[in-house]
Amino acid sequence: MNKIKPSLPTGVKDLGPKEIFEREYVLKIIKKNFQVYGFVPIETPAIENISSLTEKYGEEGDKLIYKIINSGDYLKKVTTQDFNMGYKYILPKICSKALRYDLTVPLSRYISMNQERHPFPFRRYQIQPVWRADRPQKGRFREFYQCDVDIVGVISTLSEAEILVMIGKILKQLKIPNFKIKVNHRKILKAFAEYIQEPKKENILAVSIDKIDKIGLDKVIEELEIKGINKPGCRKLRELLLIKNSNSETLSFLKEKLRGLNSGEIAIKELKELIEYTKVLDMDESFIEIDTRIARGLAYYTGTIFEVIVEDINIGSIGGGGRYESLTEIFGLKDCPGFGFAFGLDRIHQVMKELDLLPELKDSTTKVLLANFDSSVQTTILKLATELRSLDIVSEIYPNITTLKKQLSYANKKKIQYVIFVGPEEQKNSKFVIKNMKTGEQILKPINEASEHLKLLTKK
Amino acid sequence: MNKIKPSLPTGVKDLGPKEIFEREYVLKIIKKNFQVYGFVPIETPAIENISSLTEKYGEEGDKLIYKIINSGDYLKKVTTQDFNMGYKYILPKICSKALRYDLTVPLSRYISMNQERHPFPFRRYQIQPVWRADRPQKGRFREFYQCDVDIVGVISTLSEAEILVMIGKILKQLKIPNFKIKVNHRKILKAFAEYIQEPKKENILAVSIDKIDKIGLDKVIEELEIKGINKPGCRKLRELLLIKNSNSETLSFLKEKLRGLNSGEIAIKELKELIEYTKVLDMDESFIEIDTRIARGLAYYTGTIFEVIVEDINIGSIGGGGRYESLTEIFGLKDCPGFGFAFGLDRIHQVMKELDLLPELKDSTTKVLLANFDSSVQTTILKLATELRSLDIVSEIYPNITTLKKQLSYANKKKIQYVIFVGPEEQKNSKFVIKNMKTGEQILKPINEASEHLKLLTKK
Repeated sequence: MNKIKPSLPTGVKDLGPKEIFEREYVLKIIKKNFQVYGFVPIETPAIENISSLTEKYGEEGDKLIYKIINSGDYLKKVTTQDFNMGYKYILPKICSKALRYDLTVPLSRYISMNQERHPFPFRRYQIQPVWRADRPQKGRFREFYQCDVDIVGVISTLSEAEILVMIGKILKQLKIPNFKIKVNHRKILKAFAEYIQEPKKENILAVSIDKIDKIGLDKVIEELEIKGINKPGCRKLRELLLIKNSNSETLSFLKEKLRGLNSGEIAIKELKELIEYTKVLDMDESFIEIDTRIARGLAYYTGTIFEVIVEDINIGSIGGGGRYESLTEIFGLKDCPGFGFAFGLDRIHQVMKELDLLPELKDSTTKVLLANFDSSVQTTILKLATELRSLDIVSEIYPNITTLKKQLSYANKKKIQYVIFVGPEEQKNSKFVIKNMKTGEQILKPINEASEHLKLLTKK
Repeated sequence: MNKIKPSLPTGVKDLGPKEIFEREYVLKIIKKNFQVYGFVPIETPAIENISSLTEKYGEEGDKLIYKIINSGDYLKKVTTQDFNMGYKYILPKICSKALRYDLTVPLSRYISMNQERHPFPFRRYQIQPVWRADRPQKGRFREFYQCDVDIVGVISTLSEAEILVMIGKILKQLKIPNFKIKVNHRKILKAFAEYIQEPKKENILAVSIDKIDKIGLDKVIEELEIKGINKPGCRKLRELLLIKNSNSETLSFLKEKLRGLNSGEIAIKELKELIEYTKVLDMDESFIEIDTRIARGLAYYTGTIFEVIVEDINIGSIGGGGRYESLTEIFGLKDCPGFGFAFGLDRIHQVMKELDLLPELKDSTTKVLLANFDSSVQTTILKLATELRSLDIVSEIYPNITTLKKQLSYANKKKIQYVIFVGPEEQKNSKFVIKNMKTGEQILKPINEASEHLKLLTKK
């Protein structure tokens, strides 16, 4: 074996104990709420057939899917002629599997394969990593955890409102301040396209508008002009994207502008209803903002769309989603609409870290170290360890006999609060010593009272 | 988009809510014990640099690693001449990343990269999926969860005993009957090689002996003869692999046979010590069995090795591990031995299913369905839902207004025990109805007493 410098691929990261404990704190709150709202978990494999994933995320998305090369002689079906056709041509011949890119497409595959198992509406959550060969940057990783919730088999603004309210509840319980759920509707975009005399081009608009946070409004308009959207139309669109007002005023403005455009009227009615429902469900309207600049990049959305942002934190959205109507059709299941969203766990974690909202957690959870410096008393120490563990007190036995000094230093480095030891003298008197590493205090106790003392000490 | 038949690659599986709840039950017990013994979690990315993984698992292992093809024009460095050299030659030019094959090699990479962070001995656990392009069969998947525990930076039979005791505790808490921890020592194998006049060939022996459960002793011996092990040696080895006795008798027999072989004497002494420690740590010796047929396929083991099996269940081992001494050396970190093991979560789950040891869990956890059949009372229903959820009572609002009959049928299918509804009459009297779907009983209660009634009902 040759020596190599230990390294990780770009864009992925290790998690140490502290980070995992922090994430578990966040996940506990997320999962608990998902469950209280009647959602149940599923998990799908990391590896999917490539045909299940491609052509779902647009051309850009397809490029970002990690493909797995076939096992064994993957070239056996590739001729020199094929080789000369280039890498795109060969790809399907040498890769038949790929890594999960999101949790929504696997969900629609799952539903199509498990129609009998789950009565509709099916409320599922799914918390798993996904992989994208994207350019890494702050808050954007190549492996990241999504926490998805979907209600499938129904179109219902009531359910959509419920989910927004649940999101608000989670963010409040996480104590994240200044969050906003920015809402729009794909039919508003459709009406925009009609309004600027570019009917049916809403998907082109969406892909560009979706970049507004990254490149700014001017570049979005520029890009749309390059894509062939007419200039006066671009000017009109610009105006529509600049609206920033209270929800009722935004809705009035849109009603005025989009008068007579059927899809616009439907969208406005639904957005109004959505906001009404969230109010009845006890959510403060200040958390919701209708924003015409929310577009969502993915092609499958058809109705309400939204993104969750934290104001003053420059990390992009921490979650988002929307309504879709024909996602399962490709897998042979018709008439199965749904509404769903995903939290980005890594981004929430980062936001909470920046805002100092995480509980104080350490790399070690050990409460007691059992020192091990004298073979003649080892049996006593091991029996104490068994007792401690039966009380669920997190404890370690020092693995080898060595000086007490070395073991105290280990306890100090790991910030273990109590060290227990027994010397031959204590052994003779059936006693043991508990040393408090914070205060330096040492107390001597009878071994047959170990349980009660340790329970008391470690509870503090 | 073309329609495709929804499918999964061979050897991977979806998990529905019921299976996830069952696995969470198992994982809770596993994690709790890992933690009580002072182990802390880390997580490593699914994607590693291919150079971190290859040449660690033997030639066979390398073939089973899933490799990820480079993004973009992966052929740009491949000439026609390269192409003609064949798939093995091109592989390093087109794949630089691969999927985690186990959790031990990523651990040694992690340790090498985080030497300052964790004082030695470092006790870590890690519960994540791994991927192997193996031939799927009963209990063997291509994606499966490992639950690893390692203590790193020390050689200590005491720590090894502690870990075996912890394993026993976990399996007892899972109520798995008839489990056995089968123990051997790599130095026994080394002595075997010397004893049969094939010194230093213990790794060849190990790879073949490791297959004994799959192919039987005769085939193992046959294979070794083909690999060039001398015939009289093979006969002698056969005898050594047939020992089946009490631990003390096995040790006496080995002591007799391996007299004068240094590594054999060390191994016997350590195995004796190991068993002594497990006894002092309160484990019944009947759970541990010294078995010369335990070999472990991986090349990196150097001391104690073991496998956990469940008697009468034909699924292979549910866990195993051992001592290693130079795993981190390849990553530039010297003198860092360790001892670790992995539980196979999928196999434990399967064993518990076959033995009917899992709690009764369902696909749905919803306790209350709020029926939604009259727009004039919807506000009341939504307010009740908010109240229920603030009490953490798992509840769903039916998404759309439809007949009560349809909603009751949905509740029945999902085995939801209570349906709540309010008709215009009840609304007028500030009352609501709770229908028990099991008994058919309906009770009428004042809305302002909803909380107390529902808390009471759902606690049962």
